[in-house]
Parts: sequence; structure tokens; C-alpha cells
Amino acid sequence: MANIKLFLTDVDGCLTDGAMYYGANGEELKRFCVYDGMGMVCLQQAGIPCGILTSENSAIVHARAKKLKLQFLYLGVGSRVNATVQFYNPADGDPIERSRFTKLQAAQRICSQLDIELSEVCYVGDDINDIDLLSVVGHPCCPPNARPEVLAIPGIRVLKTPGGRGAIREIADIILQGMNLPAEHE
Amino acid sequence: MANIKLFLTDVDGCLTDGAMYYGANGEELKRFCVYDGMGMVCLQQAGIPCGILTSENSAIVHARAKKLKLQFLYLGVGSRVNATVQFYNPADGDPIERSRFTKLQAAQRICSQLDIELSEVCYVGDDINDIDLLSVVGHPCCPPNARPEVLAIPGIRVLKTPGGRGAIREIADIILQGMNLPAEHE
Amino acid sequence: MANIKLFLTDVDGCLTDGAMYYGANGEELKRFCVYDGMGMVCLQQAGIPCGILTSENSAIVHARAKKLKLQFLYLGVGSRVNATVQFYNPADGDPIERSRFTKLQAAQRICSQLDIELSEVCYVGDDINDIDLLSVVGHPCCPPNARPEVLAIPGIRVLKTPGGRGAIREIADIILQGMNLPAEHE
Amino acid sequence: MANIKLFLTDVDGCLTDGAMYYGANGEELKRFCVYDGMGMVCLQQAGIPCGILTSENSAIVHARAKKLKLQFLYLGVGSRVNATVQFYNPADGDPIERSRFTKLQAAQRICSQLDIELSEVCYVGDDINDIDLLSVVGHPCCPPNARPEVLAIPGIRVLKTPGGRGAIREIADIILQGMNLPAEHE
Repeated sequence: MANIKLFLTDVDGCLTDGAMYYGANGEELKRFCVYDGMGMVCLQQAGIPCGILTSENSAIVHARAKKLKLQFLYLGVGSRVNATVQFYNPADGDPIERSRFTKLQAAQRICSQLDIELSEVCYVGDDINDIDLLSVVGHPCCPPNARPEVLAIPGIRVLKTPGGRGAIREIADIILQGMNLPAEHE
Repeated sequence: MANIKLFLTDVDGCLTDGAMYYGANGEELKRFCVYDGMGMVCLQQAGIPCGILTSENSAIVHARAKKLKLQFLYLGVGSRVNATVQFYNPADGDPIERSRFTKLQAAQRICSQLDIELSEVCYVGDDINDIDLLSVVGHPCCPPNARPEVLAIPGIRVLKTPGGRGAIREIADIILQGMNLPAEHE
Repeated sequence: MANIKLFLTDVDGCLTDGAMYYGANGEELKRFCVYDGMGMVCLQQAGIPCGILTSENSAIVHARAKKLKLQFLYLGVGSRVNATVQFYNPADGDPIERSRFTKLQAAQRICSQLDIELSEVCYVGDDINDIDLLSVVGHPCCPPNARPEVLAIPGIRVLKTPGGRGAIREIADIILQGMNLPAEHE
Repeated sequence: MANIKLFLTDVDGCLTDGAMYYGANGEELKRFCVYDGMGMVCLQQAGIPCGILTSENSAIVHARAKKLKLQFLYLGVGSRVNATVQFYNPADGDPIERSRFTKLQAAQRICSQLDIELSEVCYVGDDINDIDLLSVVGHPCCPPNARPEVLAIPGIRVLKTPGGRGAIREIADIILQGMNLPAEHE
């Protein structure tokens, strides 16, 4: 895990335990984990940019990404081409409406921006709409609660910690240890 | 499970873990599961209409059903005849006030609309007010957290995954595999 | 358990798993369980009045008690005499401000209203401020997550189901079976 | 544990299970535990002042501290010097803006106010930004869900109860038993 230059993750089931808290007006809350937040903060302090790719157009995910000052956020990206996609412009921090990205295309776009290869990307996903991207990145990971089709991807690293309980922190710590850097913290 | 033409489910304990999050004004949130949502989306893409039958007159359930574009939603249906029932008119998507349906009558009404038999219906329920309907459909299912009286229904399939943690996805995957169709996803 | 004429329960840790969801303005949500609600509805349909005794002056508990149409609700009752207590007047359903009740005094007051004895009361509690009342009712119960001092009360029935996961339903079903009545449901 | 004169704790992962409930506007809820609240109330009634040190500037934590009438609250304190720190002035109960405190400096400041030593402090923390303080107090504790680096601190007491499920109550009961005082309650 020494050559990782970009960390990307799905949201539901990875940064959360898959729970979606609905009120009368739709989804109102997601349950994130403090350990995962610290993990991504440490990765970014160590020079590894972090981003989120999710099929939902979710203001909740936007709020969480802002808090953690993530460099990349693509909302509305699935395994098919979707109609609307939002992503952060790192220059000003505001989301921009774009269209027709899959998760794979979003990752390719970020790689192109950073001038790196998919083989240098670590991606965490858990469901069937993550398979296309998990199959081509250099460091595919999933939480133990991933769907059977994801657990069966050749070469995938199955984390020990469930989604929403620190799965992202587990892989962040592994990456940071591979860099032989002390973990930064605040 | 090859001849299933309609998928129906209860909400509390099946699409949720039975939790009801109350605030000062009553129930404010329910905790749904992303895996169940994907399961019902895949079923509908494979041509199997999906619906929800619940004894609660819950705007929360309405919001979740809208998000998943479910074809049928009956609110306020119990094992007795209740005073007010809401259901979707598939033609325009708006709920309509109706009265005097039990869960069994609601299922019969949908079967009649689709010109199918109760023997072609898969229904998931977990409590005593689901027994009447579970006892007559062709494919009765329940999560492992169902009440003892439900677990004891002859021929019922007890799912491995608890309600609100992917129980509906488990049965959706079984149905889709029985159709020998690849799982559709987004 | 054949001679039970009143069912009373504490809230936090009994009707919930002890979780208190706080926002910027204080407690905003409590997590109740659908199975417990059905249990208390069935008890009341079988002729056993139900009530809640809690040390919190909580509008959330009021909302839940209203939904279940419980006959008794005392808010703000602890093991000491507190300054303000609210309880339902069964005649009009509105809470009334009263003062200087402990949980034990509240239970005695209800017994007096119903012309029954404490020996005919089933009470579920889990913490040290429930010990006084648990020590004198005929049918003391607690969930398995109760504090050690409560679990050690002589003759207490320790339920198998944790608080907020159906503990109240478990004891409700036991009471209903002792009455040799079929469970009523809706 | 007989010479403890101050009880301090971190929030996320200690007073909660690490969950952060986000809505569209950021963190909206934290999940506290009724048992921990009773534990800190009992400690204070027994004459041991209690306080919270957290790296978040969280109005939610402020609300919980107010409810429990804690004597000390420092928001925005990390293992580095941060820009803004809020703490209670015990004289009037309002938070005051201050700057440039780490968790260790905050603890030193409180000790100085109370004229006690760090060796008389019990502190509960779970993540890498708690290590500096945990390494110098007389009674360092952590929940079993603490990060590996925290679990490895020499002499740390690893509690049996997870954060947010009663970890603070567990240590509060141990402290109270060491004082040979009966637990006070309300």
C-alpha cells in the first residue's frame, strides 16, 4: 500500500452502516463515525487527497465532506451515466453541476487532474454499483458488510471493521503505516 | 420462487429494525437500509412491482416509497378494518384517501389490479397483524426478529438478515436469482 | 402473573436502549420500539391499564404515551420528591402540573384511583431511582441491561430482551398468556 | 481510585459510540446514554467535579453539559493549540470564548483553579488526540473501542463497557465505591 496517491470512498455502507434516517420530507440524517473522520483528516495531512463518490444527490454528504475539507466530492454518480452530478471545484469549494459521469468516469477525471493512474487509487465500496470501479483501481477495499458480489471481487481487501464503525479509519491507518509516517492529528 | 409477480412488505421490523424515533411532536424518523432500497429498485427494474402495506398513517413511509418509486403504498391497513387508508394511484403518484381495508384486502385489491393470484405474491411481515396475509400468500417471509407467532406460520421462509439491516435485499436477491436474470443496478 | 391489574414502566433503558439523542437545544429524540407499542396496546385491549413513570419532564415521552393512548403518565418523578410532576387526567387527556411525587408515590396514587394493591402491579425499571418502587410491587421486572443494584433485587424477573428492543413486549406477552386470553391486535 | 478529585472525559467515542448524525447543515445529533448521565450526576453529588474536553465546537455537547450541570466544559480543545476554545465560567454558567488551549492545557488550567494535581485527575479518552493528556493524569481510562495507540498507553484502565453504552457510568461507579459512599440518586 506504499504507492497510494488518492483515497476515494463510497458513502452508504462504507462511511455509514447503511442506515438512512427518513422523516416526512425524505432522508434527514446519516450516521457517520468520528474515527473515519479523523482517518481522512490524517490522510490529507500526510499528503494523500481524499474524495467521496456517491450515487445520491445528498446535501448530507456535502455537509460531511465540507466539515472534513475533502478535496473531491462527486454526488449523483452511479455505475450508469446519470443526469446530474455535483462535484467540488477545489479552487473555490463550491459544488458545480455537471452531467453524465459514472463512478469510474469520476475517478478517471480526478486521476487526470492529479496526473496519477487508477493503479495508484484506493477505493472503498460495498454494493453492485461499485463493482466497475473496484475492478480497475490498484487498491480495492470493502467493509465486511459488503454485498456478496463485492466480497467476491478478485484481489479485494476485506476490512475487519464494519461500515460506519471505523472501516475507513482502519484502511487509513494501514495506508499511513505503509508510508512510515507518524500519524498526524489535531 | 420463480413465479413471483408481486413483492409486498410491511415496514416496522421489516424495512426497519423496529425503531421509532420520537420527538416532542410524535414520530420524526425511521431508520431504513440502503441495501433494501437497492433490492426493491432491482426488483422493479426486473419487472416485479413492489409495494408497502403498513398499519401506520406515516408520512415518513410515504417519503421512502416515493424515493424508491414503489408502485403500491397502503398506509393505515391493519389486520382489522381501519377507518382511513391511503394508497398510491399508479396513474398520478398521489395518495388517495380510502377506507376500510385490511392488509389482506389491500393485497387482494392489488392482485385484482394486476390480474394475478395471491399464490404469486411474496409478502414480508413480522408481527401478529401480518399473520392473516402471511397465511394466504404463496411466498410468505419474515425477518429473524419476527414475533414467535409469525415464525411459527407453516411454510414461512425465515430470512437470515434482520429487519432494517438488509432483510428485504436478501429476499430480493433470491427472487432475482430465481428469474435467472442478471441483477440490474444504477 | 395471573393477578396483574396495572402495568407500569420506566422509560430510558426500558422503553428505550438508554440512548438520548441530543441536538443544540437539548434532547430531541428517543428511540422507541414498535414491538413494545403493540404490547402495551394489547394489554390495554385486554383490560390492563398501562402507564409510564419517568424522572424526566420529557415532551417526547408525552408524545409516545399519547400515541399509545396510555392511561397514566407521570413525568418528573424520581426516587426523591421532585418539584414538578405532570400526569394525565384520564378524563380529558391533558397533563396537569402537580408536585412532590416520587415514583413510589405516583404508583400508590394510581393504585388508589383504581382501588387495587401494589401487589397487583407489574413495574419495569432499570436504574437506582427505580429500586424503591421495584422493591414493593408484586411483580418487579427489569431488562437485562439494568444496573447491577437492580438486577440484585430479590425476586425480580430479569427479562431476556434488552430495553428498546422489545423488553416490554416480552413481559406483555407473558402477562397476556397468564390471562389465557388470545392476544388482541389491530 | 480513592484520591480522585476531578473527573474529565472526551465526548465522541466515550460519551457516545462515535456516531455523528449529520443533516444538510452539518452535525445535528449526538447519541448520549442515560446511564452515563446518572453516573456524572452521582459523582458531582458525591463532591467530585466533572467536566468535558472535546475538540469539537459543538452546541450539542454544550446542551448535554448544561443538562447534567457539569462544572467544566472546554469545546475546541485538541492535542494542538487551536484557535477558539469555549469553556464554562462556573460563576455564571455561560461559555466564554478563549483561545490557544490544548486538552492538556485545559486540564492543567482546571487543576490550577481547583488547587489539585494532575495525579488526582481521572480522564477518559479514546483517540490519538487524547494521548498527551492520558499520559500524564493519575487515572487514565479508555473504553474498549479506543484506538490501538490509546489501548497501548502504559497503566491505562480499559473499561468493559463501550463508549455511549455506559462506559462513563462504569468508571463513575468504581470511583464512588472507592469512596465508600452510598451512590446518591434522584
